[in-house]
Amino acid sequence: MKHSKIPLSQTVVTLCKAHNVKHIVISPGSRNAPLTIGFTHDDFFNCYSIVDERCAAFFALGIAQQLQEAVAIVCTSGSALLNYYPAVAEAFYSNIPIVVLSADRPKHLVGIGDGQTIKQKNVYGDHVLYSTNLKLDLKEEDSRSKEDELPIFKNLENKLERILGLQKDIQSFNESEIHNALTISNLKLGPTHINIPFDEPLYETVEKLTVNPKIFKIESRTEKVDDFEIKSLLDVWHNAKRKMILVGVLQPNSIEEKWIQEIADDDSILVFTETTSNLHHQDFFPEIDKIIAPLEGEELKTLQPDILLTFGGLIVSKKIKKFLRKYKPDHHWHVSLQHANDTFFCLEKHIKLRPNTFLSAFLPQVTHHTKSNYKTTWLATRQLRRKKHKAYLKVIPFSDFTVFNSIIKSLPIQGQLQISNSSAIRYTQLFQMPKHINIFCNRGTSGIDGSTSTAIGAAVAANEPTTFITGDLSFFYDSNALWNNYIPKDFRIIVVNNNGGGIFRILPGHKDTDNFNTFFETKHQLTAKQLCNMYGFDYLRADDETVLKSQLEGFYNASNQPKLLEIFTPSTLNDKILLDYFEFIK
Amino acid sequence: MKHSKIPLSQTVVTLCKAHNVKHIVISPGSRNAPLTIGFTHDDFFNCYSIVDERCAAFFALGIAQQLQEAVAIVCTSGSALLNYYPAVAEAFYSNIPIVVLSADRPKHLVGIGDGQTIKQKNVYGDHVLYSTNLKLDLKEEDSRSKEDELPIFKNLENKLERILGLQKDIQSFNESEIHNALTISNLKLGPTHINIPFDEPLYETVEKLTVNPKIFKIESRTEKVDDFEIKSLLDVWHNAKRKMILVGVLQPNSIEEKWIQEIADDDSILVFTETTSNLHHQDFFPEIDKIIAPLEGEELKTLQPDILLTFGGLIVSKKIKKFLRKYKPDHHWHVSLQHANDTFFCLEKHIKLRPNTFLSAFLPQVTHHTKSNYKTTWLATRQLRRKKHKAYLKVIPFSDFTVFNSIIKSLPIQGQLQISNSSAIRYTQLFQMPKHINIFCNRGTSGIDGSTSTAIGAAVAANEPTTFITGDLSFFYDSNALWNNYIPKDFRIIVVNNNGGGIFRILPGHKDTDNFNTFFETKHQLTAKQLCNMYGFDYLRADDETVLKSQLEGFYNASNQPKLLEIFTPSTLNDKILLDYFEFIK
Repeated sequence: MKHSKIPLSQTVVTLCKAHNVKHIVISPGSRNAPLTIGFTHDDFFNCYSIVDERCAAFFALGIAQQLQEAVAIVCTSGSALLNYYPAVAEAFYSNIPIVVLSADRPKHLVGIGDGQTIKQKNVYGDHVLYSTNLKLDLKEEDSRSKEDELPIFKNLENKLERILGLQKDIQSFNESEIHNALTISNLKLGPTHINIPFDEPLYETVEKLTVNPKIFKIESRTEKVDDFEIKSLLDVWHNAKRKMILVGVLQPNSIEEKWIQEIADDDSILVFTETTSNLHHQDFFPEIDKIIAPLEGEELKTLQPDILLTFGGLIVSKKIKKFLRKYKPDHHWHVSLQHANDTFFCLEKHIKLRPNTFLSAFLPQVTHHTKSNYKTTWLATRQLRRKKHKAYLKVIPFSDFTVFNSIIKSLPIQGQLQISNSSAIRYTQLFQMPKHINIFCNRGTSGIDGSTSTAIGAAVAANEPTTFITGDLSFFYDSNALWNNYIPKDFRIIVVNNNGGGIFRILPGHKDTDNFNTFFETKHQLTAKQLCNMYGFDYLRADDETVLKSQLEGFYNASNQPKLLEIFTPSTLNDKILLDYFEFIK
Repeated sequence: MKHSKIPLSQTVVTLCKAHNVKHIVISPGSRNAPLTIGFTHDDFFNCYSIVDERCAAFFALGIAQQLQEAVAIVCTSGSALLNYYPAVAEAFYSNIPIVVLSADRPKHLVGIGDGQTIKQKNVYGDHVLYSTNLKLDLKEEDSRSKEDELPIFKNLENKLERILGLQKDIQSFNESEIHNALTISNLKLGPTHINIPFDEPLYETVEKLTVNPKIFKIESRTEKVDDFEIKSLLDVWHNAKRKMILVGVLQPNSIEEKWIQEIADDDSILVFTETTSNLHHQDFFPEIDKIIAPLEGEELKTLQPDILLTFGGLIVSKKIKKFLRKYKPDHHWHVSLQHANDTFFCLEKHIKLRPNTFLSAFLPQVTHHTKSNYKTTWLATRQLRRKKHKAYLKVIPFSDFTVFNSIIKSLPIQGQLQISNSSAIRYTQLFQMPKHINIFCNRGTSGIDGSTSTAIGAAVAANEPTTFITGDLSFFYDSNALWNNYIPKDFRIIVVNNNGGGIFRILPGHKDTDNFNTFFETKHQLTAKQLCNMYGFDYLRADDETVLKSQLEGFYNASNQPKLLEIFTPSTLNDKILLDYFEFIK
């Protein structure tokens, strides 16, 4: 088998394998050639080649989102790794394990005017969980300069001994740093950065490994239930009359059915589930805004919980954030192995357990309320709103709102749904989503910069039919996502094209001036047709309800290439229809 | 006139105007609405709307590259400003003044799980000259929390007085920080970052300004000649027999004709000018690699200078870097108002003057050598190589090499030429460029990430016919550059499409394996045709010399839309033709 001749490259590749990092997304370059050689010659790894590093990183994010295992991204030196940054930040806030392997010039070639060279050290600041700068393998000729770094060897007489000693020291430093970065990414679920200096020659290979890096014990994710803590929580819980559970971004199947059922059976618990929560029960409240938006004054007061339990990642609904910040619960506990956000300015406790682990320890000790009307009251409201929702659909013209209704109704029974920021995810929150579809959206930074790439990466990793719903700005922003040789044939894109940033129309502002059209809505006349031509997608379009219905028929059937359906909606109607909706359902 | 109601926004806009920051590149968003409102309602500013922040920042870089004046880029909170980073790094290493105005959430909404929120503070690390985080305007309700930040006001009894005092303090802090950032960007020529928190409501306007920010004295760029230093330099200069001047990236017309002529008349001075140097004289050596590449051993020794004077930015030619690192001059002085790179590991002096100022002070005191044969010898070599260069062109088939020859011959007599990284700029270095064309290339980080956007920005600012030559990978990487409503009709793109990263074939490596094709060359079958369709470019193509010649005829004539010419070259021939070239011209 071929390996790079450079020991440091061999070490990185060997340790990635030991840590079971299987997916490697590589962007072309020369400085990273030693890593590219190493990864691509070992069948253990699934390697992907993607030119635009911004897309490459989001593609990797999509894979890691599905597998919940570290995925590596490999790039050359210079501005390449800056293009990773949007995805790195998303990974940081969404708890997704990606490992940046950035090739760098040797230290003495940084800051002296060489090409493709920036200050790569710690370039992601506080947006990675760990950042390390490996040391260059020692060559005889530069052993002298290394002495300053490792003064411990200064007094050794024998030069060879000194060099061997230095190299051993460097090797063991590098091994433990790589181990740390991979471990932290996998255990704490988030991005880490390994910066790797390589000196020329970069392309030489050997048939046998020349290093044998130490494989530290690979830890697995563990969690420990604190019985004493559970006890103290129970007291508070039992004293609370109105309990609210709010679930943000959560991996599918995070919570066992029996706990879901037990929660649903308790009339003192109201469960609000975001579209991204992947949590379903007929007695839960998936349409948060539909409940909260029409409420006023006293009505809001009656919704206010005594205790709020939150699971999962970031919350999409601005309305529930606003509500809970104003009508604060007495207690807010967040259950998660990762970071807990004080989203409502009243966080009392961070319970460092997976939701299911917590519920397994907690629920069996709970005495359930049987005489509360907290849930039933709001179920009645929900019923009313759903009825009005249906009625509203009958009276409005073709628009974003009706289009989302049609799309969601058309979705296959199973599979995966990826949704882009920002109006796309907001619209879906107004509809009941099919139970067996897994739903994902980049809510870490809520950017429009890499949704398509993420969806493609997820489709590749999940190996199930994947539909991606996106707005036009978000789609064109990440158009390079389609420059990708790994897109599955059953991948489907639906672009809701309202010729600009429709979401800005919904906000208060100064509509229908030139300024508004240009700088807020950023009106355009683009269509996805040429991109489909360019990148081998079947292109379908719809301008009205009838055509849309017929295009959606068969849209998910097997095909020889992936498909994209572009739906054109009237940009100036959409905002009014949405704003009227909240009035109508009152 | 309309202004944002938010005092901080008014302050930023007013001070940008005072500092003569005329060009404002805005990406859509809600958090930055106060700035967008402010800038777009004042006719003083030229505002541009560009959705993809990566392109927006490179577009601004192109404008600033031409004007050498600070250009502002305005974006919303979250990952938006991370997409600026590649251009910010390029600006840092290329000494181009761009000012990032990033809108942010108020401090209390950062890190608590709100959407589009990251740790924006100092996000560009060491790649900006100055970074500041402005303070939120005070509202009555949050004066209490501000006390911690400004304890000086803690003891004031009167609440109103306290609030007014605090706000005054905040206002004056903000004013001086904005002043610093704008001044440093303009004087030191480089990127700066102003992070600006805004609280809701974001869209309210007023008819009259409510702030009257202090306009500090706007300094202008000054430089001071140190006569004593010049004297000491003269001694060394006069003692040197062989002087070499090497000129990297330099603005056109940086050096007066009379100094150019005086240098050219001195037979002991050899002037190597890179394609990006914009410096021309018939006795200079613009084709660096053509001279150096064929040299061996002793020949190299005879080229070695006693003293090396460098002007301008980063050097493209790897061959001259390698040569000067091995055959070091006794003295290396770099003349520049900005940073001096120790590119050859022998930098002795950084003369902090503009090249022309230095030459004006230095040359009149120089006694010129009249009896050196340093230059004449190498002029003879140059002559020989040029002859062989011509002969080579006659014997080789259609390829990147012949294509660059044809393109360069076809260029209009005047105007601007923008060149992308990396093979495009390397090829042009082998040819004599027309004297009256100004040439630019992003050599700061030498990235392929924003060349097209930069070229478009430059075309807009320079207001002269602009041609952009690019390779295919670089072009497709920055395809969103074409999503731009400001592209002049006389803008011309020439894509040399060899179906992948042809440059990797030239490097040593492992060619023609699947691995090589996929992960190094990243072979593809894309053409620019559909993008031209999508974005309103005339599309022309050429597959051989005859068609190329006919396509180039009339290519630069006036047209109703910009044009793109795509030239397909045989990917597997190009590397051999280039490597053979250096053998042939020996």
